[in-house]
Amino acid sequence: MPIYECYSRKGLLTEAAQQQIAKEITTIHCAATGAPPSFVNVMFMEIPAGRSFVAGQPSTRSVIAANIRAGRDLKTRQGMLRALSEMWTRLSGQSEADLVIGLNDIPSENVKEAGLIFPQPGHEQQWFDENRATLTELGWTTA
Amino acid sequence: MPIYECYSRKGLLTEAAQQQIAKEITTIHCAATGAPPSFVNVMFMEIPAGRSFVAGQPSTRSVIAANIRAGRDLKTRQGMLRALSEMWTRLSGQSEADLVIGLNDIPSENVKEAGLIFPQPGHEQQWFDENRATLTELGWTTA
Amino acid sequence: MPIYECYSRKGLLTEAAQQQIAKEITTIHCAATGAPPSFVNVMFMEIPAGRSFVAGQPSTRSVIAANIRAGRDLKTRQGMLRALSEMWTRLSGQSEADLVIGLNDIPSENVKEAGLIFPQPGHEQQWFDENRATLTELGWTTA
Repeated sequence: MPIYECYSRKGLLTEAAQQQIAKEITTIHCAATGAPPSFVNVMFMEIPAGRSFVAGQPSTRSVIAANIRAGRDLKTRQGMLRALSEMWTRLSGQSEADLVIGLNDIPSENVKEAGLIFPQPGHEQQWFDENRATLTELGWTTA
Repeated sequence: MPIYECYSRKGLLTEAAQQQIAKEITTIHCAATGAPPSFVNVMFMEIPAGRSFVAGQPSTRSVIAANIRAGRDLKTRQGMLRALSEMWTRLSGQSEADLVIGLNDIPSENVKEAGLIFPQPGHEQQWFDENRATLTELGWTTA
Repeated sequence: MPIYECYSRKGLLTEAAQQQIAKEITTIHCAATGAPPSFVNVMFMEIPAGRSFVAGQPSTRSVIAANIRAGRDLKTRQGMLRALSEMWTRLSGQSEADLVIGLNDIPSENVKEAGLIFPQPGHEQQWFDENRATLTELGWTTA
């Protein structure tokens, strides 16, 4: 966690644009939450023409649907929304009218990563410390 | 928001059927909630044969997974479930046994659309009024 | 419900592996929750190379994103996470470092299946009893 799923029309984003967006989502998420980059998963889903609709009409609107850990305060979440929107319009060439972002809060206790139950937001460092041997063995670092 | 994701087996729905379903989902959602049609996003995902299972066996059951804004009352949500189920069986040709619908509640404060943080349910008109200049510039209307 | 969506890189899982994973997810879910197997939906999504990122770099990490009914206790949910992780590493050949699992709680009242509003966890048998005629007609059984 988080898991960011980016839905956009087939052909909108080059591979280079996808990687750049993935990098910036990671930066935005980590700056806002303090989570380490190795927690941040980003996936891109292409929607073929004719498979997406707004108001019942064919649409090329993009969607960022993210599952994040519950417990971030309002200011943090809204700062993330603003930064993600600015980033997407800059890198995709779409206007803000062509983007919807939704953040779905998932309780930490419902998440498992690297074979470990996930830490509560703000307890990542303690979690890393307690599980350092396992995490090091798995090749994870706090960076 | 909302974002309706419709998963069905490859080939079940013609393009015309997808558009008709998108139109009727929009009508159902707006009638139930008072939200304007330009808020309603519908995407169709085709599942290739052999990729979907029920009880561990290959299945052609369809899934409608919707992210909607939190705050609708029980009667509204259950009315939406009934209307969506009736619509799907009529337009897809599948029986009710072949459909699962789940509504996931997302807090309005976690949603950004058209560059704006999303309004609480029932405050759409006030939100449109306060942001009319931006929305008009973006080509949005209350209709 | 539940709906388990398994995202993995294109080619990781054979069709036989997908069916085996679907069977074991069904067994794990039913053993943990008492739900009947015919409630358990599993879908597999292949992610083409270059479409998935971790820490901003291309990744082959897999994701299991499940929508389950709200109301299961902590022990049940964490037991499910452990069993799912063990199963995935055994059948996919991936290490635990290459898997994220997230469980999203959906209120029963927001779910419709087989044309019926979904039962609360623990009330499946009562729901089956009350709706036996409809369920039998639809070909459902409590097994």
